[in-house]
Formats: sequence, C-alpha cells, structure tokens
Amino acid sequence: MSLAARVSDPTSHPRLVSLIDHARSRPPLSAAVVFPNDEISLRAAMSSLMAGSMKPTLYGNKRVIESLARDHEAINDIAIVDTGSEPREAARAAVSAVRRGEHTALMKGSLHTDELLQAVLDRDEGVRTQRRLTHTFVFDLPGYHKLLAVTDAVVNIAPDIETKADALANAIDVMRTLGVARPKAAVVAAVEVENPAIAATVDAARLCELAATGRFGDAIVEGPLGFDNAISAEAARIKGINSSVAGDPDVLLVPGLNAGNILYKSLIYLGAGECAGIVQGARVPIVLTSRADSEFSRLASAALASIMASQAM
Amino acid sequence: MSLAARVSDPTSHPRLVSLIDHARSRPPLSAAVVFPNDEISLRAAMSSLMAGSMKPTLYGNKRVIESLARDHEAINDIAIVDTGSEPREAARAAVSAVRRGEHTALMKGSLHTDELLQAVLDRDEGVRTQRRLTHTFVFDLPGYHKLLAVTDAVVNIAPDIETKADALANAIDVMRTLGVARPKAAVVAAVEVENPAIAATVDAARLCELAATGRFGDAIVEGPLGFDNAISAEAARIKGINSSVAGDPDVLLVPGLNAGNILYKSLIYLGAGECAGIVQGARVPIVLTSRADSEFSRLASAALASIMASQAM
Repeated sequence: MSLAARVSDPTSHPRLVSLIDHARSRPPLSAAVVFPNDEISLRAAMSSLMAGSMKPTLYGNKRVIESLARDHEAINDIAIVDTGSEPREAARAAVSAVRRGEHTALMKGSLHTDELLQAVLDRDEGVRTQRRLTHTFVFDLPGYHKLLAVTDAVVNIAPDIETKADALANAIDVMRTLGVARPKAAVVAAVEVENPAIAATVDAARLCELAATGRFGDAIVEGPLGFDNAISAEAARIKGINSSVAGDPDVLLVPGLNAGNILYKSLIYLGAGECAGIVQGARVPIVLTSRADSEFSRLASAALASIMASQAM
Repeated sequence: MSLAARVSDPTSHPRLVSLIDHARSRPPLSAAVVFPNDEISLRAAMSSLMAGSMKPTLYGNKRVIESLARDHEAINDIAIVDTGSEPREAARAAVSAVRRGEHTALMKGSLHTDELLQAVLDRDEGVRTQRRLTHTFVFDLPGYHKLLAVTDAVVNIAPDIETKADALANAIDVMRTLGVARPKAAVVAAVEVENPAIAATVDAARLCELAATGRFGDAIVEGPLGFDNAISAEAARIKGINSSVAGDPDVLLVPGLNAGNILYKSLIYLGAGECAGIVQGARVPIVLTSRADSEFSRLASAALASIMASQAM
C-alpha cells in the first residue's frame, strides 16, 4: 500500500534534505508515538522517526499494533506501552512519560489532534509551558531562495494578539535553531496598510511594537505586509515600501487558520513546495501527521522535531 | 520606464492567451477609464484596453493627461472628458456615462478603489444591480489543467452569506461565459468538515443548500472542502471524500479577504500563475489595476471585461 499522496522529488527540496541529513548526524532521541493503531500511522511513525534520528516508543493497543506490524522486523526492536483501545489513554500515558523526561518529542498516531493536544494542555498532568501551542511549517519552495517558516496554518483558528505573539516567537525560535542568527519575520495580511476594518493589519502593527520591546529577541519583525511585498522585494519597491524584511523573510505570520491553511496547501499543491511541520509551546515538539502528507514531508517533520528537541536539552 | 513588476512568459499561460485572442476577434467595445492621471495608469489603460479589444474614453484632468501622453500618437484618437483634478468627479462622470449606455466597462485609473466603487454604488446616480459587488480572478496556473476562478480576493473583507452567494454566482457566470456549460465550484475553508468554530465551513454547507434551490443555475457547488481536496482528486480520495468537484473545480470561493488575497498572491509569486480580474455586480464589468500587475495580466483583465461586457449586451 502507498502511504503518501504525493511522490516528492527530494532534489527539488535540497534545503529540507540538508535538514534531514543534519538530524541524522546526531545521536537518536526518544519520541513517544501516540496511538499508532492503524497501518498508515504505524508505518509512517516508524519509518519517519527512525530515518529522522528518533527512536520511537509506541503508546496504544499492543495487540493491534503487533498484528499490524507482524511483517515488519523492525517492530521487535521497538518498545510498545500497552494503553488499551482508548486513544485518550494513550495520549495521557505518553504525555506522562514526557513529564518524567522519558521522551523528547511526541508524534500523533491515529487519534484526533484535539485528543492529543488536550492531554498536552492538561493543567495537572500535561506538559504546558508559558507559551500557547502554535504550529510552524518550514517550507522548501522552488520559487524562494531559502527556507521559509509559515505560522500558524494548523492549530489556532482565530488567534488573538497573544497567540500571534507566541506563534511568532515559536517560529522565530525554529529559524534561529536552524542557523538564522537574526530572523526576519513578515506579518502578512490582505493589505500593507493598517486598516481598522482588517484586524490582522492592526495586530501586525501591535506585533511590531512588541518586537521593539524585545519580545522576540534578536529578530526583525515588520508588518502589515501583503503577501506580494513580503515575498518579493520588487513588489515592495513598486509600492514604495521601504523594508529590510520585504523579499527576504524567514518567517511569515498569517492572519488565521483559513488564510494559513489555504496558503500552505497552495504552496504544496501549486507551488511545488515541501515542508516540515511541528507544534511548539509544549515542553517537547509535537509532530502531527496527515494521511495526505508525503513520505518526504513526514521525514522532514521528524527531523525538525529531532533538531528542536536536541536544542532544548 | 517599466510598467510591470513581473515579466510574464505568455507561453506558460496558453489559456489566458486564448482568452485574449478571443476578445481581439470581436468588434471593440467602449470602456470608461476613470482618472488615469499618472503615467502608469494612463499607459496601462491605453495599451491594455486597445490590445484587448476595448476603445477607451478617459475621464480626468485633460491638461495633465495630454501632458503625460504627449509622446504617444495614440492619444490623438482617444476621447478625453475633462472632469478636472478631483478623482471623485471623474468617477461620477464616468459612471453617469455608463448609466446612459455610453460605455460597457469601467477601468480604474490612479484613484482609490473605494472612490470608484462608491460612485458605482451610489443609490441615485450609480450603476448598482441586485447583486453585491464582488471580485473574480480567472487564473491560468501551470499546475492546474484548466482556467480556475477565485473569488473574492480583492473587494469584500469579511463577506456574509449573501455576499458569498453573489460572489459565487458572479464567478459561475464568468466560467459559463467562458464556455463551461456546468461550472463546478468548491467552497474552500481550512477543513473539509463542518465545524461551528470555523464559520466558513458553516457558510459552505449553507451555500450548498442554496445551490440545491437553483440559486446558481446549472452548476455543481460543493463544500466545505480543504484547498488540498478541492484542487487534488488524489488528496480527496485519501481523505475518503466522494466529490465530483474535488480535483476539477472551475471556481474556488474563499472564506474572506485575508485568505483570498494571500492565496492569489501566492499563486502569482510562487505558483507561476497569471490571472485576469474583474469586479462584477454592477451594470458593467469593472477592471481594477495594481501597480504590481504584469502587462500580460492587465491585458488579460481587459480582455475578460470585454468578453463579459459583450455577453451582457
């Protein structure tokens, strides 16, 4: 059976290949896979984690997992924690193990994202931090000259200013960890001028003020910018925008889930892009998976989680 | 001086080339150009309209226009209506002429879009119809197998259900005029399941109900769909979505301005797309222009306006 919707050509995405190679060059870390109780999530987790320098421990229904994996020799070397047939129990057990320091990353199996994130966010038993949970994609795009982080295209539906600030901080952390000393972030909206009728433009101005107070460390935050003048210095020049971020951002903060999600899928399906994605804001990075992800994308996500986890240790 | 931000290779966009050729094959129609009082908007309007089978009449400051155009012989064959130095007066005069049936299209010059649309929408002196003003792009994308309309990425910030219905009806009209007997429309959102926390998904379900009542004529409307399963039949299959629109839409309705605007710019700047765009819902099509548009895109927009105008006569 095929796990991947799209067959990706890694030669088109050399920057993500480098990221994967970088993760592989490090000693393996331990990741908890939460409820990999169908063949897609089980095989995806095993192959991507192991290839991406993560040692998986599986939390789920042991009998089902062993049945699903009976043809794969690798299963004999993988720890399985039997948490029965209830996905929430697998999430609770995996998160508890993370609390005890047993794992440095989480990966979603065949449970709903909400079920996993609820366990992560539990006030008594979870692995919350001061920051909200936000999702960051790191894109390798044939039409752009370097890796580009996009946040938040997956988790927060209508982020308020504090959630946007955390999303920005989390994505800036990623790019800093990937070697960008002073990340440039563009807060994008439909237009590049502040307009009270478009809340995203007002939030953008506020985020620039927060940046000036040092909230994001050594980073340059500008906005509102249109997607055109964020991504193209020439488009910014024509519109008379004087910006050191325009045409060269490391991070794009989008206005909300609809805009971000549609953008991310357009970059994959019509922009020939590939991406790695993680949820940040918990004590450890979390890898979500979608059935439509390519194998390459799964591998890149595991590698990104591994790099972020090792940096946090 | 260069008018265009991007140099487009027409061989990459054969469907829009066909559309332009189609417009050229018809007798020229008359378009009112509103306040082309800077060099960019004047030259763009003249060249794109005349090449796209529209005969321009210029409304603006005659002295300034003649001064700007003194090196262009073509200006001698073009009617100029002197409306002085006030952009709103140019808009009022051009819209009045449209009311009298003198022109079959409007094109924005160097005034603000709002100033033009206010004149169009004036209850006494404007050219309103029963439908709201909505914007439609028609994209030619190297990564998609046919022309694809996207609405509304320009005019309506946070469209309510009635505005979305009009946007859908307007875009379906465009694709029908371009030869699609039974247009397929996908109402896209962040997710493909109805979720009360994501209003766009609820609106999508309601729009499908409206389609069932015949609101959009002979058309197939489905949603909510994610951008992935709207654009890719394979992504829809993996997610178990049974849809005759998935992978084959003629029209995408986006949730709102931020999502649509970011999508459209990503399709141009990272998806190598080109597009024609018009505002519908007035008695005649309206061409907006942006300084960052390519020449090819201006030409395609004028051609689309010409085709829509001749169909309405």
